[in-house]
This record gives sequence, C-alpha cells and structure tokens, in this order.
Amino acid sequence: MRVLVLGGDGYLGWPVALHLSSHGHDVGVVDNFVRRQYDFEMGVDSLVPIKSLQQRVKTWESVSGRTIDMFAGDLTDAEFVDDTFDRFEPDTIVHFAEQRSAPYSMIDRKHAVYTQTNNVVGTLNLLYAIAEHDPSIHLVKLGTMGEYGTPNIDIEEGFIEITHKGRTDVLPYPKQPNSFYHLSKVHDSHNIQFGCRIWGLRATDLNQGIVYGQETPETSLHPDLATRFDYDGVFGTVLNRFCVQAVCGHPLTVYGKGGQTRGMLNILDTLACVELAVNHPAAEGEFRVFNQFTESFSVLDMAEMVAEAFPGTARVEHIDNPRNERQEHYYNAANTKLLDLGLVPHLLDPAVIGSLLGSVERHRDRVDLAAIEATVEWGRTSSRLPTTAGLTAG
Amino acid sequence: MRVLVLGGDGYLGWPVALHLSSHGHDVGVVDNFVRRQYDFEMGVDSLVPIKSLQQRVKTWESVSGRTIDMFAGDLTDAEFVDDTFDRFEPDTIVHFAEQRSAPYSMIDRKHAVYTQTNNVVGTLNLLYAIAEHDPSIHLVKLGTMGEYGTPNIDIEEGFIEITHKGRTDVLPYPKQPNSFYHLSKVHDSHNIQFGCRIWGLRATDLNQGIVYGQETPETSLHPDLATRFDYDGVFGTVLNRFCVQAVCGHPLTVYGKGGQTRGMLNILDTLACVELAVNHPAAEGEFRVFNQFTESFSVLDMAEMVAEAFPGTARVEHIDNPRNERQEHYYNAANTKLLDLGLVPHLLDPAVIGSLLGSVERHRDRVDLAAIEATVEWGRTSSRLPTTAGLTAG
Repeated sequence: MRVLVLGGDGYLGWPVALHLSSHGHDVGVVDNFVRRQYDFEMGVDSLVPIKSLQQRVKTWESVSGRTIDMFAGDLTDAEFVDDTFDRFEPDTIVHFAEQRSAPYSMIDRKHAVYTQTNNVVGTLNLLYAIAEHDPSIHLVKLGTMGEYGTPNIDIEEGFIEITHKGRTDVLPYPKQPNSFYHLSKVHDSHNIQFGCRIWGLRATDLNQGIVYGQETPETSLHPDLATRFDYDGVFGTVLNRFCVQAVCGHPLTVYGKGGQTRGMLNILDTLACVELAVNHPAAEGEFRVFNQFTESFSVLDMAEMVAEAFPGTARVEHIDNPRNERQEHYYNAANTKLLDLGLVPHLLDPAVIGSLLGSVERHRDRVDLAAIEATVEWGRTSSRLPTTAGLTAG
Repeated sequence: MRVLVLGGDGYLGWPVALHLSSHGHDVGVVDNFVRRQYDFEMGVDSLVPIKSLQQRVKTWESVSGRTIDMFAGDLTDAEFVDDTFDRFEPDTIVHFAEQRSAPYSMIDRKHAVYTQTNNVVGTLNLLYAIAEHDPSIHLVKLGTMGEYGTPNIDIEEGFIEITHKGRTDVLPYPKQPNSFYHLSKVHDSHNIQFGCRIWGLRATDLNQGIVYGQETPETSLHPDLATRFDYDGVFGTVLNRFCVQAVCGHPLTVYGKGGQTRGMLNILDTLACVELAVNHPAAEGEFRVFNQFTESFSVLDMAEMVAEAFPGTARVEHIDNPRNERQEHYYNAANTKLLDLGLVPHLLDPAVIGSLLGSVERHRDRVDLAAIEATVEWGRTSSRLPTTAGLTAG
C-alpha cells in the first residue's frame, strides 16, 4: 500500500515510517519540523542525537535499498495538503502530525490556542482533502487514552452501550480529557466521526497509551536512523524521566501520590498496532476506535520498577502534582480490538527497563537535569518557563 | 450586576442586552459586526431593517434613559478581550459571539475551519481572560440542543448517570453533533468544563433550541430597536422560512420527510432563560448545563401549523434534504432546570404565528425568495453558493 505518514520526523512517526517501509509498503513522510522547533523554544534536546530527516531518508535507502518520499510542509496549509495528495496518491494516511504534549498546551493562552488550532485545523484540512481526492483513503489517526480521563466505570473502545429509562443505544464514550492538548484530540475524534458519517470516509482512531522505548529493529540498523528520546518536563514521558533520574543519581520524582494509573505500551507495539490498522482498513463510512495500550501501571508502580534496577541507590520522591487530576482512581480500560487483529504485546519487564537505562547511560553526558523540572502548572494560566516564545495559531 | 453581552449586535444578543438593561443590570455589548458581513457575503439581508449598533444604543438611551456601553472588537483578539475586561469589569458574561449557522459552516473547507477556529479560539481567550481577571465572573455561554444529535435514548441536561458492568458514574452526555458548527459548540463545552475544573470558573452552558419570534417588549418601543429576522437558506431558521414562503404564496419547503424533531422556544423565553441564568450564577468550579427549549416539534408539524394560517392557499412541498440526518427518530429531551428556576414558557400557538406573519407582511417588499434555496449540501465538500468569499481563520 501507499502509506503517507504525517509527522514522519517525530518520535513515533519516524520508526513507524521505517517499519512500514521495511514491511513492503510504499511510504511517504510529511513533516513541518515544528517538533524540533519546540526543542529550541524550550532549550532542550533529545537525549539520543537525531539526524535531519533528509539524512535519515538517505541512510535508510543505503541500508535497506528502499526509498521514502519526503514532503516538507504544514497540514494547516490546505494547498500543501492538496498538493501532497496529488503527488503521493496515498491509499492510507497515518496521522501523527499534532502537537502532542499536555504540558506544552498548558504553558499559557498562546500555547493552548496554538495546540487546539494546529491540531484541529490540520485534521479538518485532512478530512476535506480525503473527501475531495478519494474518500476510500483510510485515515489512521493517533488519539490518546487521555481522551477518556478517569471515569469511575470501565473504559470501552470509543463507544458504549447505554440503557437509560428503558431504552438502549450505542453512543460515543463520554470524554473527560485533562489538558488543552487532550481536549484537541477529543475535538478531532468528533470531527472525524462526522466526516465518516457525511462523506463515507474510513477512519481508525488509535487511542494510544503512553509509549516507552527508543529502539526498533529498523532504527537499530544505523545510528543515523535513531529516533528521539525525550525526558524533559514538557515533552518527556514518565518512564523516560525516571530512567534519566535513576542513571544520574537523582530521586525519581513522582507527581503527588503517584496513584495515577495509565495505559502504557512498548514502542514495538506501536509499530505493530499501526501496521495492523493499516493492513485491516476500516469499512466505508466506518469510524472505529482501538484502545492502543497493552498494560496499565500507576506512576508509583513505574518509579518502583525503575528503582529496583538500582538497588540501594535510587529512591522515590513525591513532589507536588502540577496537574489537577485524580491521584487515586478506578481504572479499567478495554483493549481487545488490536489483540483480536493479532497483536502480541511486548510487556514491560526488567529487560526492557534495562535497555532504556542502557540508552540513557550511553548518552549520560547529554543529560540536563534542570530540564526535568515540572514548570507548567495546570492551576496557573501562565507557566514558570523562562520562555513563552509565542508561536502563533495556524 | 455588570453584564457584558458578547455578540450584542446579533439576532438574540441585542434583545437580551436590552432586556437585561431594562431589568436593572448595567450592560455592555461587544461585537465585531461579522454577522452583518456574512449578509454581504451571501448577498442577503434581514427581512426587518436594522440600525447600526451605535444608533441602537443611542435610541435605547433616549427611550429608556439607560446607557449601554459598546465595545467593537473580536474575541479571537486576546488583547481586545483583556482590554474590554479592564474597562468594563463584568460580573457576568453572556456569550452569543459565535458563528451560529450550520449551513454556513458546511459551505466548504474554509468556512468549516473559520467556524471552528473563530468559535473555539474566541471561547478559549474568554476562559483565560476570566481566569486571569477574576475567576468569580460567571460565564453564561450559548450552546445548542444540536450538540446532542438524535440519540435513541432520552436526552438529559449535560450529564447522564451510566451504570456499566456493575459500576456507576455521572458523565458528560455523549454528543453526536451534525455539522462543523454544532461540533464547534461541543468543542467549546468540553473546553469550558475543563476551565471550571482546573481554575474554579463558574459556567452555565445554555443548550438552546431553535428560537422563533422577532419582537420583544423592549425592541417594540422604537423601530430603531428592531432585531434581525433571517429567512435565507443559510442563516434563516425553519419557522421564519415557512412564514415568508406562506406570505409570498410559495410552497412551504420541508427537507425530506420532515420527521426531524427539534426543541424550539419563543424569543421571549430566550430573554427569560438568560436572565434566570444571570440572576442565579453557577457555583465556584461548577459547569452546569441547561437545556433551553420549551416544546418539541417536527419540521412537518411546523409547516402544517403555518399552512393552517393560510387555509386553501399554502401547501407543503417535500424537497431533498440537503443535510445528512435522521428524518424519523426518537426525541425526548429533558428541560426542567430552567423551569425549576421559574421559567414560564410562551408556547407556540396561532397567535404567535400570526404575529410572525404580520412582521413578514409589513416587510414583504424586502423578501428575496431566491435566498431561501438550500444551496449547501452536507454530502458535498463545496456548496453551490455563488460566493465562497473565503473568510480566513482567526
């Protein structure tokens, strides 16, 4: 299939592009490089050095003999989107091209507006482009488990059967997202579902958990193919942060009680899930939702798993939770649809943590511990970050 | 109270501003006059002539002895919002300032993007301004019954208790909006609820039905105080359209079977509902939802009610439904919260229809029957309108 990976220069977009290319798909990548710009704005950098997209594509060709087409541009630019569709003629779109950090969206008003405008308008442009070029193009969209929040009932995959006052219907699962970023994904889900209804589009919304891991069979083939490793307080994810803190002899900082439970998955399972979605398209007019995670852990669970790898030296420290969120709550989310398609999960175990710690140790000289501080507080309308450079809405 | 009415030059914003002013509140109005610009874009005009906002405010002062402060500007301009808050110091915000036409949002990609950007960014700016100036300011936000769509279970007021696999929670009512406009209101509702949660804001989301009527006790005091009467295919509402068609001897055009059932209310009840919400603010951190309608009718019911006022001459004609929507469906929506606060509804009866018909007859020479045509089709990505002038996103 001809698969266009949007956000193909990012943490997951790039390894997914390589994986699909190595598995026989014709792959194009689209990126506007704004993820690299956020690093400049924040004054941070990927722990593992990454090459330019041009270099990555060139190295991939020399290593694998396969080419990846590259399109530099912005989804909020509808002309660029149309032009890219004309040139690449995709069968499938894999859409990672959104601002994906909750703290970034909570920095201040400008970053909230930027996040929602960028994500919602980019996806709207995409829906129109698919409808106008070829409604049979399958849209595989990255959503997040964070769209659901933490309801006191089981989380289902996108829809829930509700019996109410003697009548029954299957309705979209009620969402309680907890950042302007997570809200933008909820807005997208509603817009995409509507596009499927009125134009007969095919869409798969992958409500992904928190991904850990940095190496894949393809990125490991050459150092130039490495993907990002983010550990900073804004773009870093929790397990990466704990690994960096452990290696550097810093306490593992748990937000609040650490009872916040989240769905997680290995980067290898992200590759497998996206591939499964691509290879088994949604039907005409179908908006389907897969919950893309393999295990649930509390933040404290994760800190303790990392600490066990450093017996006697690593310790857990509870700090004020900068996010307004429930710190102890019920959490039981369904995730059977991808398993039914054949997913075989890579679970989190000491070996996986060991491999993450290995990545950190190899690049320990690049760690900036100050970057880990939680500078963005949900209860304030502007963060303590030194820079709020003011990206403007698309 | 000091009440700032956003969109105070519009069909409902203006009569609400007058009503609150006449009932003792200190009122300011904010508008960017984009509603008047849409008329230029569409080549249509209010059936009832309206004066400039400046003239309206001047006439109101001469008629009532009360002043209304006027602020000309755009909510997507955060500096303007901040400045207006500094100057007016509101206790309450009544927020009508959104693009409010479903067909307008469905004209093409640009109008969809414009509608969602304008509405969502304006409301985000407002949430930040309230949080930063004074979180105790009560936001009364106009939503729409169309946010709910037509589920096969009873519609509740914003939230629903769900028992699922042996556990129970009260969650946001699942939404199935049917246009990019209605979607923008759903996005707003989610964003506002989040603002209440993290910043302790007070908000009332008024999910309003379709309003009919054009005269209020205050607008009737002087012709300069009249509010709009829209009957065109893009901004006109269904009852107005039927009245214009009946007076002009044109068949009453019902979309499809006409079984689409909607909540409706008299403009006098809009005034009363907004006043009730203003006078009974939400609590700190509370996001409450009132369903603001008094009766439900099918489109065919309404056509037949209007036709009965013209025995022997008016006839109903079914035309293709340009909207992808269920034309026969269950519809039972709760609306007790405003009644509990004291609302006494003005129901739709022959006298009310007679008064609407009277307005049409007085201005019959201004009718442009061609403007009624349904030019925007949900199943197409661009409309048959002669103009898609391309307003750009805020």
